[in-house]
Amino acid sequence: MRALQQPHTADLDLATVLHALGDPVRLELVRLMAEHGEVSCAPDGLDVPRSTLSNHWRALREAGLTVTRMEGKARFIALRRDDLDRRFPGLLAAVLPDPPLAG
Amino acid sequence: MRALQQPHTADLDLATVLHALGDPVRLELVRLMAEHGEVSCAPDGLDVPRSTLSNHWRALREAGLTVTRMEGKARFIALRRDDLDRRFPGLLAAVLPDPPLAG
Repeated sequence: MRALQQPHTADLDLATVLHALGDPVRLELVRLMAEHGEVSCAPDGLDVPRSTLSNHWRALREAGLTVTRMEGKARFIALRRDDLDRRFPGLLAAVLPDPPLAG
Repeated sequence: MRALQQPHTADLDLATVLHALGDPVRLELVRLMAEHGEVSCAPDGLDVPRSTLSNHWRALREAGLTVTRMEGKARFIALRRDDLDRRFPGLLAAVLPDPPLAG
């Protein structure tokens, strides 16, 4: 198991995080992760070209919103919910359709 | 007194609002408005060229974050706090350094 580089929690920048969230596809990816925990890098039901999706995943990761886990050739991506809640309390809750789950 | 066009509250789009917030200068403008209520279109203490500032104000207004009041040649801009709180509860509170004032 390897992990791609991502910013440290203390380095998360609000404007950068908001910019990453400020796109309908990325917002949908964030919601999918919030709902399912970890998602594949090409989730079902998203009508977005793979290369476009890849750019969106990179933007999310570089802004510090996600952590990527690699297993062989597969990538699984999850929301850094605890890190985000610690740095920007209330932000994810305001952006997601449902209140975040406990923990 | 005239007012520039701005989207209706029901038409405010979360991704568009987040994108507008996702810039350090625009975030600073939002914070200035939150602190002072109405601000001039060229607030003191911002080291940003006037034309750049003008683009930022337009982005904020078109995303539905601000209302602009014109008096002669002067423009005064305020946050659409109630509209934003109604459409996206908790978002401004998460983005501003202090909790929003009542009302």
